[in-house]
Amino acid sequence: MNSVFIATSIDGYIADKNNSIDWLHTIPNPENSDMGFNEHFEHIDALVMGRNTFDLVCSFDCDWPYNKPVFVLSNTMDSVPKGYEGKITLISGELAHIVKYLNLQGFNNLYIDGGITIQNFLKADLIDKMIITTIPIVLGGGIALFGELNQALNFKCTKSERYVNAIVQNHFERTRQ
Amino acid sequence: MNSVFIATSIDGYIADKNNSIDWLHTIPNPENSDMGFNEHFEHIDALVMGRNTFDLVCSFDCDWPYNKPVFVLSNTMDSVPKGYEGKITLISGELAHIVKYLNLQGFNNLYIDGGITIQNFLKADLIDKMIITTIPIVLGGGIALFGELNQALNFKCTKSERYVNAIVQNHFERTRQ
Repeated sequence: MNSVFIATSIDGYIADKNNSIDWLHTIPNPENSDMGFNEHFEHIDALVMGRNTFDLVCSFDCDWPYNKPVFVLSNTMDSVPKGYEGKITLISGELAHIVKYLNLQGFNNLYIDGGITIQNFLKADLIDKMIITTIPIVLGGGIALFGELNQALNFKCTKSERYVNAIVQNHFERTRQ
Repeated sequence: MNSVFIATSIDGYIADKNNSIDWLHTIPNPENSDMGFNEHFEHIDALVMGRNTFDLVCSFDCDWPYNKPVFVLSNTMDSVPKGYEGKITLISGELAHIVKYLNLQGFNNLYIDGGITIQNFLKADLIDKMIITTIPIVLGGGIALFGELNQALNFKCTKSERYVNAIVQNHFERTRQ
């Protein structure tokens, strides 16, 4: 089971025209709701993220936020950067093979993160569930979550929940006939 | 109050790569739910649509579907096509002026329809409410609902409802400080 948990604008962007994600936090969240993140995180065995997302997480002014194995997809890095030994594992190759390899190691529920990585997993039809939190803003440009696909993919919305009276989170599960 | 009531794919398209909208009807709807359309339609005084949407509606193999005034935005048509006299009124000019003009005539609640028209209303910050029905399919290409904007627009999600256990409809209302 490969899942996505990500926030987008109403018009489907994960970052704005200035590559900023500040708009993610424009809605007041007085009770500091995690909007389902911890529940999602409990159900996964490992994360698979792209190089850009790894760099983004490293840029955050906080400790390493994950207490589960993180596999970073990269064809260019040849060793784990200093300070991240034991936190991440580099991985490369065809995505279907990577998933099979991780499943054989007991990592069955994978959290797929990062725009390009999610797009590549969708191209290979390797996404089973998407939890998309819609921040109620129309950005009018930026980095889109979704990209081009050769074939359409059917899902169904299995759950919808509003948070802080402004944000909506929809769960989509892949339906394969 | 200018509102939008439209269906998109998960990736935000209103038509697929072949300009088709067949995928709108891929989800079984045995009880023929109108998914809130009639309730929305009762609350509007008139429709404002672009030329493309007018042509699309004309192409449907059915009687004229609207029992409320329809204003068609067009800079190129100089007369109402035969058979549509009394059904539509041609209108052109700056959108803010058109809205003011229609409001003065008592058409206060306008249903804004059509991709380009909705984009132009958003550019002029003239949309107050968007009811977006998400058909649970990732198309991977097509005609996008949203386009480029010079400034981001804030909304809040005021309602979220699932239909036929697969489709989700989110209501977004513009928040202006």
